[in-house]
Amino acid sequence: MQPKEILLMLTDQWADWEAAYATASLNAFFGYSVKTIAADKEPKVSMGGLQANIDYTISEYSNLANVAMLILPGGANWQEAAHNEIASFVKKVLGFQIPVAAICGATIFLGRHGLLDNVKHTGDELELFQEHDDYRGQVNYLQAQVVLDGGIITANETAAVEFAHAIFGVLKVDSAEELDGWREHFKSGAVRV
Amino acid sequence: MQPKEILLMLTDQWADWEAAYATASLNAFFGYSVKTIAADKEPKVSMGGLQANIDYTISEYSNLANVAMLILPGGANWQEAAHNEIASFVKKVLGFQIPVAAICGATIFLGRHGLLDNVKHTGDELELFQEHDDYRGQVNYLQAQVVLDGGIITANETAAVEFAHAIFGVLKVDSAEELDGWREHFKSGAVRV
Repeated sequence: MQPKEILLMLTDQWADWEAAYATASLNAFFGYSVKTIAADKEPKVSMGGLQANIDYTISEYSNLANVAMLILPGGANWQEAAHNEIASFVKKVLGFQIPVAAICGATIFLGRHGLLDNVKHTGDELELFQEHDDYRGQVNYLQAQVVLDGGIITANETAAVEFAHAIFGVLKVDSAEELDGWREHFKSGAVRV
Repeated sequence: MQPKEILLMLTDQWADWEAAYATASLNAFFGYSVKTIAADKEPKVSMGGLQANIDYTISEYSNLANVAMLILPGGANWQEAAHNEIASFVKKVLGFQIPVAAICGATIFLGRHGLLDNVKHTGDELELFQEHDDYRGQVNYLQAQVVLDGGIITANETAAVEFAHAIFGVLKVDSAEELDGWREHFKSGAVRV
């Protein structure tokens, strides 16, 4: 049986660190196969200048049966273009009851396309980021580090570890206790001996 | 004047998150140009399954005049091979008084090649990681998150934020106060309003 795929949606200027804890563990330790997907096959250059190759284009990825989750890292390009094709793909993924995880600029992208309309947040972070039009301003106003609701995980730019923790929880890759230990290890740098 | 380059040394199974905070800020905000370098031109696949293209091979990179720093992220491959060509390149870089920053498995690689012999550590982490032969064991025994000595920055796997903070400090990209604020923001997820 082929491993379930995690799709990592890349745009130019994707933020190197935001999905990195999640993808490394999912691909290397938890039995998933992480694949990059984008609107086209051109390598996508990260904020850090890294040219990442694209495994799939959206248009060629028609069968979602083997997808465990779609992850959208943030980056400097979500505000620069509408990314309508990506929005359509996210809708399709959600329609199949496949969870979607978005961080930083990607959450604002989802909000702009109405994809967070059914998400009931516990805090006021969504209203706040809809009120502020400046990208850096928006993420700074996010109050919660990670919100999980209705099959969608949203997180702010400082929450790369928490974001991974929430993703692991949704995918049930380990017990809650083990996952909390993982989070503590990477957040505090606690030494395991 | 062309921007100073930061060289990111990639091997297969490089750890996605470890240098990511550093490279993103250096390339996007601090006026450096981050370039990938490797023993050969084959794309290097991260632990997270990301295929990163290589800008330079070691053998073609002869003029170090424009290099500000060499960064070696950790990963699952440092223990698998000697990487002699990379060790020779690190020696050359250090000979030019260019700082080198290594994290996780890459610090063990440096130690094996005698490249940490002149580093006076404040703690006992170096002795400890030389005593333990298992990769995961070693990084767990590192006591300090980041050590900076003799032009070499070393850090453990949980210290991606601290590692970036130390790199920014060596490159003097901002005041100590601003850099401490940056570290606090990304470590604690403190909300800036």
